[in-house]
Amino acid sequence: MAAIPVSPLAPKSYPDLPAIAGVRFATAEAGIKYKNRTDVLLVGFEPGSSVAGVVTRSKCSSAAVDWCKANLPGGVARGLVVNSGNANAFTGIKGQKSVELTADIAAKALGCAPNEIFIASTGVIGEPLDAGKFSGVLDQMATRLDDGPWMDPAKAIMTTDTFPKLSGATVEIDGAEVRINGIAKGSGMIAPDMATMLSFVFTDMAVSAPVLQALLVKHVATSFNAITVDSDTSTSDTLLAFATGKAEGVAPLESLDDPRAEIFGEALRDVLFDLAIQVVRDGEGATKQVSIHVEGATSDASAFRIAKAIADSPLVKTAIAGEDANWGRVVMAVGKAGEPADRDKLSIRFGDLLVAKDGERATGYDEAATSAYMKGEDLELTVGLGLGEGRATVYTCDLTHGYITINGDYRS
Amino acid sequence: MAAIPVSPLAPKSYPDLPAIAGVRFATAEAGIKYKNRTDVLLVGFEPGSSVAGVVTRSKCSSAAVDWCKANLPGGVARGLVVNSGNANAFTGIKGQKSVELTADIAAKALGCAPNEIFIASTGVIGEPLDAGKFSGVLDQMATRLDDGPWMDPAKAIMTTDTFPKLSGATVEIDGAEVRINGIAKGSGMIAPDMATMLSFVFTDMAVSAPVLQALLVKHVATSFNAITVDSDTSTSDTLLAFATGKAEGVAPLESLDDPRAEIFGEALRDVLFDLAIQVVRDGEGATKQVSIHVEGATSDASAFRIAKAIADSPLVKTAIAGEDANWGRVVMAVGKAGEPADRDKLSIRFGDLLVAKDGERATGYDEAATSAYMKGEDLELTVGLGLGEGRATVYTCDLTHGYITINGDYRS
Repeated sequence: MAAIPVSPLAPKSYPDLPAIAGVRFATAEAGIKYKNRTDVLLVGFEPGSSVAGVVTRSKCSSAAVDWCKANLPGGVARGLVVNSGNANAFTGIKGQKSVELTADIAAKALGCAPNEIFIASTGVIGEPLDAGKFSGVLDQMATRLDDGPWMDPAKAIMTTDTFPKLSGATVEIDGAEVRINGIAKGSGMIAPDMATMLSFVFTDMAVSAPVLQALLVKHVATSFNAITVDSDTSTSDTLLAFATGKAEGVAPLESLDDPRAEIFGEALRDVLFDLAIQVVRDGEGATKQVSIHVEGATSDASAFRIAKAIADSPLVKTAIAGEDANWGRVVMAVGKAGEPADRDKLSIRFGDLLVAKDGERATGYDEAATSAYMKGEDLELTVGLGLGEGRATVYTCDLTHGYITINGDYRS
Repeated sequence: MAAIPVSPLAPKSYPDLPAIAGVRFATAEAGIKYKNRTDVLLVGFEPGSSVAGVVTRSKCSSAAVDWCKANLPGGVARGLVVNSGNANAFTGIKGQKSVELTADIAAKALGCAPNEIFIASTGVIGEPLDAGKFSGVLDQMATRLDDGPWMDPAKAIMTTDTFPKLSGATVEIDGAEVRINGIAKGSGMIAPDMATMLSFVFTDMAVSAPVLQALLVKHVATSFNAITVDSDTSTSDTLLAFATGKAEGVAPLESLDDPRAEIFGEALRDVLFDLAIQVVRDGEGATKQVSIHVEGATSDASAFRIAKAIADSPLVKTAIAGEDANWGRVVMAVGKAGEPADRDKLSIRFGDLLVAKDGERATGYDEAATSAYMKGEDLELTVGLGLGEGRATVYTCDLTHGYITINGDYRS
């Protein structure tokens, strides 16, 4: 298969993220699947670092996900190992052994306990992962940990991504600067619960594990869990957040009632949201990003389900690819969501352009203006249900020949 | 847009269906949207005919669906009007008026009450349908009703279909021959609840409306509601069954306890299933038909939801298009279904070839044999969950460039 071209929605430039006190990393070429590129990331955390995480709800989660689930309740992290090219998913008892061996090797290299090591794997499903390959590699990496550049870990975790994904925020707390850096990877097999597929966020703020977990769960709902590329959910989706507490002059954040929790939470949300949108913009074959807003639903949850039905509809997504303001297909998707909806109260807008109102084509519908709008790269689609106050937004991309080529063109 | 080529999965020949006593029809070119082809069907039933039906569960159902819903409880039919090219869906109060006018015109033409007329429309959503166009047309059609050929109604109801869909069965009951004929249309926007999009079945057997309804509901579950092309559900899906009672020498079927109910029901099921499979085989862009069998689930309903998750997965469907036995994607789809599943008990077969067992690649997995199997046009995929006795089958097709071309290539 020919190389996949970089997404037309890729960022024009990348942020130069600052060092995070207490976080040091290295990347390497372990040769798990790829050649001539880094495919393994080792991150070391200073003692006292806390961890929180959200993982896939797949009933067939990978061995690495199971490992993280088992160790997250401990709330303590000293290391993170991520490999790309092999997801170590659906590899039976071999997969579990492979994860245990990886944790042992990393723990020895970093001088900590295996259950303080977090692990994520991404790539092919069903192929046994030979963790022995990490043996010399992780030891060697541990000798050259550094605090930058952040482009390196962002690149090492890529699979079918066409661009690396980084985001950062700084926020003033207690008169000091607190930093949050994040990286992510993901392009296909992306849908809520979780959609990452992988994302790692690092801060020098001291945040207790329960508070970090609560903030992560809150803000993942409107970021990674509000995006969909193709409605498919990975067996490996993992979002982990690490807090080193090494920012000087900042008291630990140990309660959600602490007013600083909201300030820190908003900055965390900005980073998560930015990374999630980058994943959508790298959606396989994507040529347009679409924000699907649903308002006037009977509840926020109902609005979300309707927005997701629209965002996942192949007919809506192909119409957007064709720059066709096909609101009939939007009505179809609203109808199939199974949520309360009254056909004759529906309104639909593309951007600011009202195309349908009260169950029929809007008076004054301007086909030329709507067609012109649809040629844009960033589209807003708003559905008003007229039933209540519930609202939600889901972010997606169009469905193009590119998606079929990437996922189905093996025969050539 | 260029003409869509006929599906490679189209039947090699079409059945020459016999007349059904008490059913007479005509087709015409009303010019609703298409030119140089028939786009309206009028069917007249002799007095005493019963009717049953299953319609879309869309919350935004079309005006014609609402009309059928309102009149099905009456259980009596004298006429059926079907038009193609305009679905009369999401057309507000105009849509309702249009349906009422159509029923009035047809009732006058056939000499019956408007609520004995059933109506179905298919085609573009959101465009008002000018029922005035039916005025002279239906009157004229009523003067030339005939009992054949059945290819005519099958063709008149087509939209993006690439071939007409007909099926028939005869069954001996009370020593006499009872006939069931059916027609269907549908190609995209096909998913359970209902997937037809339109299908009409006719029998000369006398079957009371409640019995006909019960048999229809029972057998639609394993036919039209067990197929999916693209997971999208139409606002217009309608399946209607009409029983004229004009078969000579056959006593009326008025109870499900009557042993003839099962005999008749099986024949009805054969016709519904044949038509449903034809819809899948005319799936937009389809090059392969796939039967997804799930067994060993905790219940039949659970098995069905897992089979549907697999059948709807874009990643599974593109892999099949690419003739790739990508069982990793099948595991992913099982995992995202949200139903009970134990990764380490899963087995997966393509045809008779075991590819995965007990949570990992099967010993003796034969890549060459599996690749050869995937080149076939009719594929069987079986997932064993190893948890219970629940089983279900869902029928689908692959996802190809053809689907994108048909639904998204407006820009050219």
